[in-house]
Amino acid sequence: MPVLRSYVSGRWHTPTTEGAPLHDAVTGEEIARISSDGVDMGAALRHGREVGGPALRELTFHQRGALLKALASHLREHRDELYELSARTGATRTDSMVDVDGGIGVLFTYSSKARRELPNDRVLVDGAVEPLGRGGTFAGVHIATPLRGVAVQINAFNFPVWGPLEKFAPAFVAGVPTLIKPASPTAYLTERLVELVLGSGLLPEGSLQLVCGSAGDLLDHLTEQDLVGFTGSAATAARLRTHPAVVRSSVRFTAEADSLNCSVLGPDAEPGTPEFDLFVKQLVSEMTVKAGQKCTAIRRALVPEPLLDAVAEAASARLGRVVVGNPASSGVRMGALANLEQREEVRRALKSLVSAGRIVHGSPDRVDVVDADPERGAFLSPVLLTADPDRAQPHEVEAFGPVSTLLPYRDAAHAVELAARGAGSLVGSVVSHDADFVREVVLGVAPWHGRLLVLDRDDAGESTGHGSPLPTLVHGGPGRAGGGEELGGVRGVLHHLQRTAVQGSPDVLTAVTGRWTTGAKRTAGDEHPFRKSLARLAIGDSITAGPRAVSQADVEHFAEFTGDTFYAHTDDAAAAANPFFGARVAHGYLVVSLAAGLFVSPEPGPVLANYGLENLRFLTPVFFGDELTVTLTAKQITPREDQEYGEVRWDADVVNQKGESVAKYDVLTLVAKEG
Amino acid sequence: MPVLRSYVSGRWHTPTTEGAPLHDAVTGEEIARISSDGVDMGAALRHGREVGGPALRELTFHQRGALLKALASHLREHRDELYELSARTGATRTDSMVDVDGGIGVLFTYSSKARRELPNDRVLVDGAVEPLGRGGTFAGVHIATPLRGVAVQINAFNFPVWGPLEKFAPAFVAGVPTLIKPASPTAYLTERLVELVLGSGLLPEGSLQLVCGSAGDLLDHLTEQDLVGFTGSAATAARLRTHPAVVRSSVRFTAEADSLNCSVLGPDAEPGTPEFDLFVKQLVSEMTVKAGQKCTAIRRALVPEPLLDAVAEAASARLGRVVVGNPASSGVRMGALANLEQREEVRRALKSLVSAGRIVHGSPDRVDVVDADPERGAFLSPVLLTADPDRAQPHEVEAFGPVSTLLPYRDAAHAVELAARGAGSLVGSVVSHDADFVREVVLGVAPWHGRLLVLDRDDAGESTGHGSPLPTLVHGGPGRAGGGEELGGVRGVLHHLQRTAVQGSPDVLTAVTGRWTTGAKRTAGDEHPFRKSLARLAIGDSITAGPRAVSQADVEHFAEFTGDTFYAHTDDAAAAANPFFGARVAHGYLVVSLAAGLFVSPEPGPVLANYGLENLRFLTPVFFGDELTVTLTAKQITPREDQEYGEVRWDADVVNQKGESVAKYDVLTLVAKEG
Repeated sequence: MPVLRSYVSGRWHTPTTEGAPLHDAVTGEEIARISSDGVDMGAALRHGREVGGPALRELTFHQRGALLKALASHLREHRDELYELSARTGATRTDSMVDVDGGIGVLFTYSSKARRELPNDRVLVDGAVEPLGRGGTFAGVHIATPLRGVAVQINAFNFPVWGPLEKFAPAFVAGVPTLIKPASPTAYLTERLVELVLGSGLLPEGSLQLVCGSAGDLLDHLTEQDLVGFTGSAATAARLRTHPAVVRSSVRFTAEADSLNCSVLGPDAEPGTPEFDLFVKQLVSEMTVKAGQKCTAIRRALVPEPLLDAVAEAASARLGRVVVGNPASSGVRMGALANLEQREEVRRALKSLVSAGRIVHGSPDRVDVVDADPERGAFLSPVLLTADPDRAQPHEVEAFGPVSTLLPYRDAAHAVELAARGAGSLVGSVVSHDADFVREVVLGVAPWHGRLLVLDRDDAGESTGHGSPLPTLVHGGPGRAGGGEELGGVRGVLHHLQRTAVQGSPDVLTAVTGRWTTGAKRTAGDEHPFRKSLARLAIGDSITAGPRAVSQADVEHFAEFTGDTFYAHTDDAAAAANPFFGARVAHGYLVVSLAAGLFVSPEPGPVLANYGLENLRFLTPVFFGDELTVTLTAKQITPREDQEYGEVRWDADVVNQKGESVAKYDVLTLVAKEG
Repeated sequence: MPVLRSYVSGRWHTPTTEGAPLHDAVTGEEIARISSDGVDMGAALRHGREVGGPALRELTFHQRGALLKALASHLREHRDELYELSARTGATRTDSMVDVDGGIGVLFTYSSKARRELPNDRVLVDGAVEPLGRGGTFAGVHIATPLRGVAVQINAFNFPVWGPLEKFAPAFVAGVPTLIKPASPTAYLTERLVELVLGSGLLPEGSLQLVCGSAGDLLDHLTEQDLVGFTGSAATAARLRTHPAVVRSSVRFTAEADSLNCSVLGPDAEPGTPEFDLFVKQLVSEMTVKAGQKCTAIRRALVPEPLLDAVAEAASARLGRVVVGNPASSGVRMGALANLEQREEVRRALKSLVSAGRIVHGSPDRVDVVDADPERGAFLSPVLLTADPDRAQPHEVEAFGPVSTLLPYRDAAHAVELAARGAGSLVGSVVSHDADFVREVVLGVAPWHGRLLVLDRDDAGESTGHGSPLPTLVHGGPGRAGGGEELGGVRGVLHHLQRTAVQGSPDVLTAVTGRWTTGAKRTAGDEHPFRKSLARLAIGDSITAGPRAVSQADVEHFAEFTGDTFYAHTDDAAAAANPFFGARVAHGYLVVSLAAGLFVSPEPGPVLANYGLENLRFLTPVFFGDELTVTLTAKQITPREDQEYGEVRWDADVVNQKGESVAKYDVLTLVAKEG
């Protein structure tokens, strides 16, 4: 019997003892054995900190993003292998897509986010520069730098591919090495995933480690720069959160605990409406995908009292068509639970739920199964209940399987109150085409949710559904759901970085952040900075040009030429009555156009295009006869890894003859790397 | 003897028992008694949730900000009263300014931040809209809404005014009620502060409560929507963090623990340089302000080995001039510790520190005192030590008083390593005028710090100093410092809000956020939206205007008129060689100028000014003969509370004759409320 290996401290480790057996969810046969005996957990963490971390921190955000993209492509080529093993966890082809393709998709998304939304640098600037003194010699800015520890993942059994990858991607982009501790029942799939990842040869050594089997004394070795990301039950989350090493070192601890997520049907969504059908279809789908073993599945279906019977009937009819059995057989819609122990847990929870209501479809004990032995495989019928919404059980007892409970509500306020009784959920959904109802429920239940889906006829065609966390949106919820937050694009990266306020002179802030800061030194050499390629351009390179007088004729001509005859530019009396001007003024668009005329270097050269403008503010009116001078300063340089050019952000400051700023903005250009 | 009262559940509560005595730090005489006996903690939390929360949530961010400003002004008028009581805590006039004026300053800053950086609304949109489907019918956006619980403050004794106010301000702006539990030794000052705050009549009932005395069973009543903000020792933080109710409900828990903050002197800063003097002066100041009882004080002074003796000598000389005694006496620079117990704790810590080094100035046991009894008042001499930097004690033992240790380092890498041995600090500083050294140390130690000050000759005149948290910058640090984060402008507000991803159609996102979302319905009525005041303008109101053809003559004329003769507009051959264009194109500035000419409504009316432009992107080149059409849509409306006008953000989308977007941006205008 094969025994799963761990990858720690730069090598594959075979356990020193035989280990515990893992079983095929469908056939019950033994697949592998698992044990972490002999793994030196402290050494693994040190290896991550001392080998993986430094290697990752040498790369920029963009370089890490590029590696993720290559890794995603590599894994996509090996999908079939992962699918094969995934079937043994009880997963249908659709279930495997959610897990495998979903996981690869997270890598692609984080690769893209890293390159589009982060600098091609090792330091991230968070937010604006804060002036701290009137003289402009003292300011503050927040930087974010990678924690110097290891991101330890302690995962659940239900997503053996997506789970590790969705935690790995943001950590990797952040520059923090990962150690994966998969849940035992499906660890054979994660082990294969890690083999493929390491086999790609793409990742710096130490940036990814794997411990199959018990975590042993792993947590005892945590220090203040490590992180723990846990997915699983609320009870285990509580135990890990209070581990002495976690508490002693204020270790960043994120938990995603399965929660009693709700879906609310709007009173407008009567039978015959698209929303009624969408609600029923989504409910059944959430009950049966992954055999309901999703932290995000719908456990509580809140329906208007008058619609309760209609929903029960329609959902039962649909559930009646769900074929349960061997995922390898055609026509099978729902596979097995992860193992027989899980089935027993679900049956126990069902007993408690039944005490507050009744079953309207399915049975805890009987299930028709296609092409499998219902006793050896962990099969269970989907079970739909109704219950008294004011009883405690439906809001507190989670059956982690194909189980959901219909709860009738009276009005929107009652629905909000019931949703909140889940005491914090990963996700909720509202199915309604009534904007007022949607707004009331969404804003009412938002504080208890990490994600809320509004499903209706308008978005149904593209909706990704209640149960699908997306890499661009946060995943996590307050209270019972664990109080954590993962994913959410760059937000997920920030969770692995330490935010630090840096105070100093503008020159110091420029040196630390690599971005020019207002008030810092400028270099105005003989050569126009537009003549410099990225290879030669330096932060602070600048040009000052002007003055150019703005005459009444200029303004009147611009008004006529562009058609912008707004009264403040064309009508003396009306302009005089304007509370901000008091007299006719030049167009803001004229000011920036003239400024460009002043600072541009017209001949062909490394500056290829002006692709945008940001944060433009008109600060002082420009009156007839005023003279404009502009200073343009290289503020940020972002070479693109896969192009012959990059982005240069310029600080533009247009002043009048008194030295007052009349306009400030950032000019965005594309500039060649060489030449 | 007066007994301190609590303010809970809408009334002042006098304890049912006599309580424990509190003593004047200077004279040792009894000032007051303290007890929370008889306070119903569960009822107080319910009162906050059920009365304070709803009242606060009816206000917008701007309205809450306006109340904070009024409150700050009210407190400023009553400063003298607070100063008087503050002196009894052992504080000098300067110490009291830090505490009292610093606290009032936080209110002013948060008032300003709320009105400048947050919408005049009850919902905050966090980040950009994320498209989730290619057809544009499904998208996601993150909203942030107030937690429905109470922000419980458990404060330290050293800042009885600033401490409560710096936690209260961001919670209040967020719309979350506060319950203050001050540390007993100085609770009499916080009680007076709360009397003044409530006496102002400005705050909605339930938005601020006070419990003087023991917290009793307060934490047992916490639920998943409450927050705890703790300031104090790492040991107490660990105890509170693992409280069963905190763990069970994943209660947001923030700790600011006193840490072993370091200040690093650069090798360039030899005697005779401004930085040498700045370092010594700041070190002595941090040792003596508040008698060193600051979580942010310098405990470890890292100096280049060759400069150790010079620093010791200069600092000792300066310390020798510090007059200790009754803060009411003129000439006294340093007052008393909070009480005799604190002095005993500091003496114990000193014993441990001495075992790893030696004292170079001061004595744990002897102090010359002006105008006070050195035995009845909690006086202590400032004590400066040197120690072996490789021993454990200087990095682990904190003497929470006028105590600091000089530690010699070899090079920048050694300094970084030593700084990290503090295992997480609130703040560090670097005193140097060598940009390379500064950059290496700042980026090296950033992951262990919440804030870093770089002090040099350039910013010294305006620097607020190592020990001063500022409301615009984050306050908190990783690891030993507690792992929390407070303040930091809007970041501090966000800690009290739940972030929720909302997925739906553009119309749904518009309805939920109150901001127009790309793809949502537009309303193009007969009336130009520029003719509508804020009273009549609605989100989604729009105008489409055009087409306007852009001719070669237009481009050539614009080039000549503005001086922007960039080759892409003027030189066929060079433009053809440009990788993005392939032919001559119109100026981006011309495109936006012509677009304004199309959408503007020239006659005087409610639109008062265009004050800026944001997020402008040129997406498709405009070639000669192309025809431009622009659609302008009201995206966000922000009435100002204290003006007759407000801000309107318009979505501008300029398309060519093929319907391709050539430019997208936000136009920012000021619009009258009426008329």
